[in-house]
Amino acid sequence: MERNQPAGAAAFQDAADPAIVREVGLRDGLQSIARTLPTAAKLQWLHAAHAAGLREIEVGSFVPPRLMPQLADTAELVRAALALPGLTVSVLVPNIKGAERAIESGAHAMLLPLSASHAHSLANLRKTPDDVVREIAGIRRLRDAAGSRCAIEVGLSTAFGCTIQGRVEPAEVLRLVRAALDAGAERVGLADTVGYADPRQVRELFERAFEVARPYGVNSANGEQRLACGHFHDTRGLGLANVFAAWEAGVRRFDTCTGGIGGCPHAPGASGNVATEDVAYLLASMGVPTGLDFDALIALRGAVAGWLEGEPLHGHIWRAGLPKTMKEAA
Amino acid sequence: MERNQPAGAAAFQDAADPAIVREVGLRDGLQSIARTLPTAAKLQWLHAAHAAGLREIEVGSFVPPRLMPQLADTAELVRAALALPGLTVSVLVPNIKGAERAIESGAHAMLLPLSASHAHSLANLRKTPDDVVREIAGIRRLRDAAGSRCAIEVGLSTAFGCTIQGRVEPAEVLRLVRAALDAGAERVGLADTVGYADPRQVRELFERAFEVARPYGVNSANGEQRLACGHFHDTRGLGLANVFAAWEAGVRRFDTCTGGIGGCPHAPGASGNVATEDVAYLLASMGVPTGLDFDALIALRGAVAGWLEGEPLHGHIWRAGLPKTMKEAA
Repeated sequence: MERNQPAGAAAFQDAADPAIVREVGLRDGLQSIARTLPTAAKLQWLHAAHAAGLREIEVGSFVPPRLMPQLADTAELVRAALALPGLTVSVLVPNIKGAERAIESGAHAMLLPLSASHAHSLANLRKTPDDVVREIAGIRRLRDAAGSRCAIEVGLSTAFGCTIQGRVEPAEVLRLVRAALDAGAERVGLADTVGYADPRQVRELFERAFEVARPYGVNSANGEQRLACGHFHDTRGLGLANVFAAWEAGVRRFDTCTGGIGGCPHAPGASGNVATEDVAYLLASMGVPTGLDFDALIALRGAVAGWLEGEPLHGHIWRAGLPKTMKEAA
Repeated sequence: MERNQPAGAAAFQDAADPAIVREVGLRDGLQSIARTLPTAAKLQWLHAAHAAGLREIEVGSFVPPRLMPQLADTAELVRAALALPGLTVSVLVPNIKGAERAIESGAHAMLLPLSASHAHSLANLRKTPDDVVREIAGIRRLRDAAGSRCAIEVGLSTAFGCTIQGRVEPAEVLRLVRAALDAGAERVGLADTVGYADPRQVRELFERAFEVARPYGVNSANGEQRLACGHFHDTRGLGLANVFAAWEAGVRRFDTCTGGIGGCPHAPGASGNVATEDVAYLLASMGVPTGLDFDALIALRGAVAGWLEGEPLHGHIWRAGLPKTMKEAA
């Protein structure tokens, strides 16, 4: 048991490192819900999330409106979000056309999905992973030619397994991390799109991926590490264990959805991103600064429950509330 | 991030170490539920749990029947459990009278609760922690004088915080671990009785407790480590993250309740032990052998839901089922 003490101690000395929680409910959450949330409600969500201390929000996706009418108002949300002080505004971008719109919109970052599962890539994007890597390189050239500073982040989905293909080889995940960075991505994240990951696998794969990313150095623009984000679903109850395992491996950036909504339309049964309020609680309980206002996040969850009445919400902490020990500390 | 690799690697090389999952639903689960489950149903539960591969089961408690009528048939359950091959039969024992009955019953192990929280100790046992330590020493003398081999395990409750007292000092927890071992306990476990623990705290406290327990060596009877059990509640969604953190620290023995029932009558809002089927899934997903039959555990959960109709059950994996990757492996 003592074998883990030095590393444990070392990891925990870093507990004071802040972590960034990125709210992705307005994109990953809403894209999995058939109904279209009115723009006015999305704007309330956006403002409440910012008021709760969230400083990075994925506000939508530049996909063709006919494919995802729920997100057709993304440009308007970007405009509103850019007016909020200190907020990093990110959008999902499925292809070069979407990248053009993201660059025009003035968003600070674009998230490009790349499936580690060949089968999921074809089902979700109708392209092979390597086709997508070539497109990422094209988007980087486009971005640089436009003189834009819109950061390019690749979200490596199904990195821990796939409902269609089953097992996804870690070697393939690591190959694609390298390929995405070689193609010009400034940042790569690993996503458990379908809720297959376990904490041992998460810690091991992130540790190996950090090794792959290290030679690329930090992002010259802001000094951020290249391997950044952990994106976890709570489909089988391991979402928060996986967030902890990723944090132990050195991950300091997590995608979350208020109320634990979300999933992947091409991954049956994969409902439920880890809830923003649950991850805020987990990180706060470990003494990791996030700048988040817990009560404001719970209030936002209540508002989202109202806007999405009838949709299943998930998450844990909203039931029991903070422990007495944290109320004392606060 | 690389800081954790050696320890991580070391911990994960031990993934092949088996872990023991102890079903405590028949005691910790049922004591928190007002209704009395008929003995016939308890016997079905006991046999189904054994058939599912559980090899340690806490079958009841030798408390005065007027205080806990739900568990008045404990002696009968011990008799039935002793007939099951390869099963370690444990019972909870609140005092010396209970210990006498446990020794008479022929149970293999008795669990003695000791609250790290002074306030919880008074509310739950009407004694101070040090009064309880003295009683543990008396029970050890009684056990030895009787020539019994009934193992003495101390369950250190509210080790991570208390709904009544709030913060519980780690130094006090470690003092009581030492005091329990000095009093003659063969094994000590740490319990998050009220769902206050976070995974960082779990890993740190178990690492420190292992240091305290190491000088006492292993249990001469069976070579088991002295600091053994992790007992976690999922009140705030961190139950499985805490099981993982304890496993990383070296814990290889966990208390669980089928269907995530249970709690503490003296700790408001502390409902929900980690579910047996969830912990079985977590450990299996990490490649940790448990000898448990997942489908049989899910079937047992269904039976428990029927016997306790109207009672809230908890847990996660029963909804989504095993991932395709584990079905392929199986």
